[in-house]
Amino acid sequence: MVQPLTQSQPPDGSSLSADASGDIPDAHPGKSLTLQTALPLDCGIAMEAVTIAYQTYGCLNAEKNNAILLCHALTGDHFAADPHPVTGKPGWWSNLIGPGKLLDTEKYFLICSNVLGGCMGSTGPSEINPETGKSYGTDFPGITIADMVRAQARLIDALGIDQLFAVIGGSMGGMQVLQWAASYPERVFAAAAIASAARHSSQNIAFHEVGRQAIMADPDWCDGNYALEGKRPVRGLAVARMTAHITYLSEAALHRKFGRRLQDRHDVTFGFDADFQVESYLRHQGFSFTDRFDANSYLYITRAMDYFDLAKDYGGVLANAFYGTKTRFLLASFTSDWLFPTSESRAIVHALNSVAAPVTFVEIETDKGHDSFLLDEPEFHETLEGFLAGSAYLKGLEISPKMAD
Amino acid sequence: MVQPLTQSQPPDGSSLSADASGDIPDAHPGKSLTLQTALPLDCGIAMEAVTIAYQTYGCLNAEKNNAILLCHALTGDHFAADPHPVTGKPGWWSNLIGPGKLLDTEKYFLICSNVLGGCMGSTGPSEINPETGKSYGTDFPGITIADMVRAQARLIDALGIDQLFAVIGGSMGGMQVLQWAASYPERVFAAAAIASAARHSSQNIAFHEVGRQAIMADPDWCDGNYALEGKRPVRGLAVARMTAHITYLSEAALHRKFGRRLQDRHDVTFGFDADFQVESYLRHQGFSFTDRFDANSYLYITRAMDYFDLAKDYGGVLANAFYGTKTRFLLASFTSDWLFPTSESRAIVHALNSVAAPVTFVEIETDKGHDSFLLDEPEFHETLEGFLAGSAYLKGLEISPKMAD
Repeated sequence: MVQPLTQSQPPDGSSLSADASGDIPDAHPGKSLTLQTALPLDCGIAMEAVTIAYQTYGCLNAEKNNAILLCHALTGDHFAADPHPVTGKPGWWSNLIGPGKLLDTEKYFLICSNVLGGCMGSTGPSEINPETGKSYGTDFPGITIADMVRAQARLIDALGIDQLFAVIGGSMGGMQVLQWAASYPERVFAAAAIASAARHSSQNIAFHEVGRQAIMADPDWCDGNYALEGKRPVRGLAVARMTAHITYLSEAALHRKFGRRLQDRHDVTFGFDADFQVESYLRHQGFSFTDRFDANSYLYITRAMDYFDLAKDYGGVLANAFYGTKTRFLLASFTSDWLFPTSESRAIVHALNSVAAPVTFVEIETDKGHDSFLLDEPEFHETLEGFLAGSAYLKGLEISPKMAD
Repeated sequence: MVQPLTQSQPPDGSSLSADASGDIPDAHPGKSLTLQTALPLDCGIAMEAVTIAYQTYGCLNAEKNNAILLCHALTGDHFAADPHPVTGKPGWWSNLIGPGKLLDTEKYFLICSNVLGGCMGSTGPSEINPETGKSYGTDFPGITIADMVRAQARLIDALGIDQLFAVIGGSMGGMQVLQWAASYPERVFAAAAIASAARHSSQNIAFHEVGRQAIMADPDWCDGNYALEGKRPVRGLAVARMTAHITYLSEAALHRKFGRRLQDRHDVTFGFDADFQVESYLRHQGFSFTDRFDANSYLYITRAMDYFDLAKDYGGVLANAFYGTKTRFLLASFTSDWLFPTSESRAIVHALNSVAAPVTFVEIETDKGHDSFLLDEPEFHETLEGFLAGSAYLKGLEISPKMAD
């Protein structure tokens, strides 16, 4: 039943290039699709020659009904299961992806694309603007979560897939999941939005704004034109990442991991070195991030999250976004996640309930904070596995050996 | 009974200058004390010629037993009830201080001093180092909460006061209150620590570290020597303040005040201007802060808070800090304060209970977050008023008309 994806010319005439040949470009390994027709953006611009970098795992079956789209978070990318080409670290969901794993590559065809505005091969502010031959910088148009999803839909078109078996994502990935379900209800059989929200909160906009101000305050940002100037706003981006990183954890997790323990010293130094382990950890998180992420991408993608307000596009009533949907939903939140607290997931559940959409909601007890969706959280994994197994059964996909037990 | 404070030469030979003449220096209005003998600091240095800027409200009585020391928070100063000399805004507790008010200037002699390391007249990194004739900058020694309190105690000595009727403060002010009670138990009749903690948490150290990194990342910080270079790290300090400001509020308060409302526009601009009110507010908070605060003071004072761990100085057992105390304590916390959550106050209450110290603990229901101690919170004000009235009764101070009602 399962057969390899044929890398033929996609139906819309888009050009599809793959690394099946083993000929991986240095800059951005993985597959990529360049759209042959303009991508309309919410800001009103129709963007030409958009490239979508992506990875796939497993094979599309003959019925083309076993595809799962994985949507990455703010600083994620399409290397969900591969070692990261810059850092060499395992992919962000490599613990879940593989033969016999939760996201079983012997059963599902997994697709993950770098979001529009990203910096790992998809068209974004660090890429070359074909009109000028120079890096876009802040000439890049403002983007939204819906724009990201519109680009993903073109990729799914190009892959010849009518309906995705599932769309799954955490945090900003969950926003994309919700947008998919709202924009393309017929194309999503099952949707799992984890640690997410239907609109970015005031506090979250505030934290993003701090990060952006840190970047834009760095003289090496050069009004967004650092690429032309041969500079990089490393210090500002590191501060932005440090702030954000605190919000991804919980107070309890920080206390457990670091408490007030000192970093390789017996007593405080009465100076501004990293006396405490938590400081050393944060500095490392901040500066290592700058090796793999582009500052302008950070500005654009945080902005897209800030702008996300699904109800707004549906007359101010979130339920309207899902009216008449046949998609099956899973909403999952984590008790210690204060960035995307359970109340945000509940609001989505209420909206789905009010239109009688099939929805499962689970709040996972954990002290690991927002990042729990990326970590080893057995209860979350069991929940997602159960949701996928139930959906696969309903969809008529082959039942996995695990289910047959 | 009540008589004006005599501005005589203090017993320790320190010089005391006052603005009673109406001759207020432009730079730092208010009173000031310059210590004639060195102030020993926790870092091992004995600091010469320490100046303490302070304000007083009301009059010291003949028995000298009606003095209340008010301890300010991180970015506060001694202008607790006066308009701020730079911003012109009302003092941070002007709502509580005055004739017939909670902190009744007809009854109490209120003292508030700018902390050591501050930037409003007390010796701090922006002041001139007498040894070099130049601004201290980062040559200023590392300081602690105990150092701040040691300096305050010298001021109280100079004012001829043996025992303070009360020491009151919120946030970092509460840390000073606890340190006073631990260091000088005989000198504190009543102690009110509000929205505070006996040790700075890992998460709080992390947020401070982000702020410091933002300042130190600003090229205008000049390795701390910006005063010599004629520069000011305004952008870094603003980012530090913005980050901190979010932590002073609650998610609910931000949602209520700003939600996702746009700033003077009908729709988003797809750019990086302050589209949202919360962004505009934060930018204003950040940049207006730089008019009144010194970046190096911010570094030193945040560091002092990070280092605060009262138990550490008492064999790792917080209760030991209060063993045998006769001080009466009030601990108050706010339900939506996630920076100094109720659990931190409870830990102090448990320690006080274990040494049978008289302690009242109140958790105030509010959605206003950490800043509640500065805001109009009737339940908090009633609590503090009741604590002071009860303490005044026990101390044998004249009962105010309010109590007689």
